Amino acid sequence: MGLTVERGEIGLTVGKNEDFAEWYSQVVTKSGLADYAPVHGCIVFRELAYAVWERIMSILDSEFKKTGVRNVYFPLLIPERLLRKEAEHFKGFTVEVAWVTQGGDEPLSERLAIRPTSETIMYEMYAKWIRSWRDLPVKLNQWCNIVRWEIKSTKPFLRNTEFLWQEGHTAHATREEAFQQALEILGIYKRFVEEYLAIPVLDGVKTEWEKFAGAEATFTIEALMPDGRALQAGTSHFLGQNFSKAFEITFLDRSGSTSYVWQTSWGVSTRLIGAVVMVHGDDKGLVLPPRIAPLQVVIIPIFYSEEEKRMVVSKCREVEQRLLSRGFSAQADLREDYTPGWKYNDWELKGVPVRIEIGPRDVRENMLTVFRRDEFKRFRIPDGSLEEETGRLLEDIQRNMYEKARRMMAEKTGRAETVSELSEMVSRGMMVKACWCGSRECDEAVKSETGASIRLIPFKEEQVFSACVKCGRPASKVVYFAKSY
Amino acid sequence: MGLTVERGEIGLTVGKNEDFAEWYSQVVTKSGLADYAPVHGCIVFRELAYAVWERIMSILDSEFKKTGVRNVYFPLLIPERLLRKEAEHFKGFTVEVAWVTQGGDEPLSERLAIRPTSETIMYEMYAKWIRSWRDLPVKLNQWCNIVRWEIKSTKPFLRNTEFLWQEGHTAHATREEAFQQALEILGIYKRFVEEYLAIPVLDGVKTEWEKFAGAEATFTIEALMPDGRALQAGTSHFLGQNFSKAFEITFLDRSGSTSYVWQTSWGVSTRLIGAVVMVHGDDKGLVLPPRIAPLQVVIIPIFYSEEEKRMVVSKCREVEQRLLSRGFSAQADLREDYTPGWKYNDWELKGVPVRIEIGPRDVRENMLTVFRRDEFKRFRIPDGSLEEETGRLLEDIQRNMYEKARRMMAEKTGRAETVSELSEMVSRGMMVKACWCGSRECDEAVKSETGASIRLIPFKEEQVFSACVKCGRPASKVVYFAKSY
Repeated sequence: MGLTVERGEIGLTVGKNEDFAEWYSQVVTKSGLADYAPVHGCIVFRELAYAVWERIMSILDSEFKKTGVRNVYFPLLIPERLLRKEAEHFKGFTVEVAWVTQGGDEPLSERLAIRPTSETIMYEMYAKWIRSWRDLPVKLNQWCNIVRWEIKSTKPFLRNTEFLWQEGHTAHATREEAFQQALEILGIYKRFVEEYLAIPVLDGVKTEWEKFAGAEATFTIEALMPDGRALQAGTSHFLGQNFSKAFEITFLDRSGSTSYVWQTSWGVSTRLIGAVVMVHGDDKGLVLPPRIAPLQVVIIPIFYSEEEKRMVVSKCREVEQRLLSRGFSAQADLREDYTPGWKYNDWELKGVPVRIEIGPRDVRENMLTVFRRDEFKRFRIPDGSLEEETGRLLEDIQRNMYEKARRMMAEKTGRAETVSELSEMVSRGMMVKACWCGSRECDEAVKSETGASIRLIPFKEEQVFSACVKCGRPASKVVYFAKSY
Repeated sequence: MGLTVERGEIGLTVGKNEDFAEWYSQVVTKSGLADYAPVHGCIVFRELAYAVWERIMSILDSEFKKTGVRNVYFPLLIPERLLRKEAEHFKGFTVEVAWVTQGGDEPLSERLAIRPTSETIMYEMYAKWIRSWRDLPVKLNQWCNIVRWEIKSTKPFLRNTEFLWQEGHTAHATREEAFQQALEILGIYKRFVEEYLAIPVLDGVKTEWEKFAGAEATFTIEALMPDGRALQAGTSHFLGQNFSKAFEITFLDRSGSTSYVWQTSWGVSTRLIGAVVMVHGDDKGLVLPPRIAPLQVVIIPIFYSEEEKRMVVSKCREVEQRLLSRGFSAQADLREDYTPGWKYNDWELKGVPVRIEIGPRDVRENMLTVFRRDEFKRFRIPDGSLEEETGRLLEDIQRNMYEKARRMMAEKTGRAETVSELSEMVSRGMMVKACWCGSRECDEAVKSETGASIRLIPFKEEQVFSACVKCGRPASKVVYFAKSY
């Protein structure tokens, strides 16, 4: 009987630059991140993906809590009449809703939506809870599952019928405070994605026609994928008083008069895992940034005799313990039925940032062989410097991964003065900076000609360098065009 | 303008012994644990309840992980054909299922169940993933939401259409290993409920007719509520090969022959929060055991002049910092628009175990006034012993709460030799130990006469002390009868 999983079966059979879509699908399933579930557009988040998600939740949750946000849990099911209360919002989501129409053996008198987002069910309660300025601000968040019935083709993590996310919902006494709240959260998102996921992002505002259904403005962070498509990595919505008016969320201010609250909502989802796969993965599989890798260091013994085995395995255990005691996440892979080579492939596929290989010569010479996943490089270090070198190496990998992603983004960002330039760049897999007059017509015309549309109006205003890329009238802004996920 | 929430409004208007059901409902809503949602049988888990749930998740999750369990996330929606695969299981759950029949504007070709539990969707994947003995054991767990369409009356935390839980699902090569796994988890549950929630439980086996639909045996821990009803606080199922045969989960063993795996599933849910409320709450509200209290110590300033205010508030901040730096969860309540008396009521209602009151005299005399929530007692300690006394006091409260609950359980557990004795005890709000012949008929006859039925057959066998409580034939076992939640 052979190994459970054969060598050929575990490796990728296609390169990242050969067939990006197929490569992505193989990395996701073969690394053990996820598997396709026997349900329309759904995946199973396997151990590795869920462990990454746990890291993401833990870091973001602590950032939210530092700003006074507290967690809650609202019902999954939303009565249709609530979902209808804010007209724009309902229009935006109704085509994506999965409807519950039967409970047990009985038909329901009113359809229940599985939450596509929770504004309506939450704000119905906010109207009851908020009475005076003393109750403000309200800053609540929930980590939960979301269902959006996808009719387009689905893709693991990026577009699934069900996904996991957090959604924050705040209410404030003043417009200014709510506006600042929405921006503060976007700042948290940006720092998190750049510093932990090692993915550079642009921050800015969505166009009026791409903003969240029911919002006054949507702030976004956009990351560039290697195929030139932009990925919306997090959004924060300034809701103004749209929902507070629809749901009658009022408060008595200090002077005793009644006002509607000002609101925000914001979220990031498990699509972040998809971004990590696409940006950092390579032909050997996943590459995880050390700061979110569930396992940072794997230790693998190499031996040929029983005597060598005793010596090497004991050293592996020692190294594991030394790393664990210093707060690194480390594991010695002592499985007996797999060769070192098979284990290398397996852990490379799973994206573990650092591998330490220990053979008889290493033990005898008091050295360790270290392999860094990002650069695919092997080198030796003295055993005594293990802890220090591991810390330095993980930091260096984190920095290097961010730098590589930043360079990729810079190389794949073009600058166009005409639609034909823009089109040519988009067809070469680029995102394109261009000047724009501000009209919806021009955005839509560019989209129908090139497939790319405005992904964001950046916060950092740039000097207008040409007329509107489409209509040739004077331009008011420099914006980013790209295809999108 | 008065306070947002008036004094009368925040306190309970009924005693625990006066009207237990109404008292429970008031504690749940007025403490801010939960609120009724505008959806059939659903509640909102507000900040306090969710924070308790976070404590529960964090402690149990770490216990599970120590035994090699890893977290995953499977889809919410289960195609009807999968749910039907294990016949007993389907029969057990079908009346409780909420069905999705429309996605967007389209009717679905097959109904999708919102998971009432995830055996079927998970084991469909296990069949694909498990091939050889090398893949075993599989030990996966997920923290998720569950929907069971309740037709009976609902009650916050105890019986809701939607609740939160964890469900562990393991697969093993041998019957013995799976059996031990199910017992090991029940042991974790028992220790957790007793040591953290301060609630004593009985452990044992469910009768054949009360076991989980599809299981070979269900192990349970049962807690006694003050009204004499038993509450199933956690269950662990030995599934045998029922599901592996239905789902074709086979593996090649070391000798090369194919066998079905042996399985377990196990879970605890947010109903544990309801148990904490019922067992420990009193006429002033919630009382939280220190080991799961999100906030262990609240510090309240008392002052009459601006000068006193400066002195007292600064002391409160200092005490808060000293406690935080020692790892206690502490918070100074410096809200300006509330009186100390109002704050006392508020935090008593919310069940914070320890309150420190600091007035000008305390500061001058270098003393602190300490109030323990469980005994409703106030005493003074020297400022210098704050850290040590707080640690000791929290431990003492935890122990005292468990002891009180244990005494309550002992007092409310009777012993009957006849149905009329049993009935009389049940009517006085007791659980009753009685001898039983082993037949379903006797259990059901007792239930129809008294409302109480067998809650468990205890692991700890006791000496049979009479004939069967119902039929008078020789008894084989001592079992516990009670009404149940």
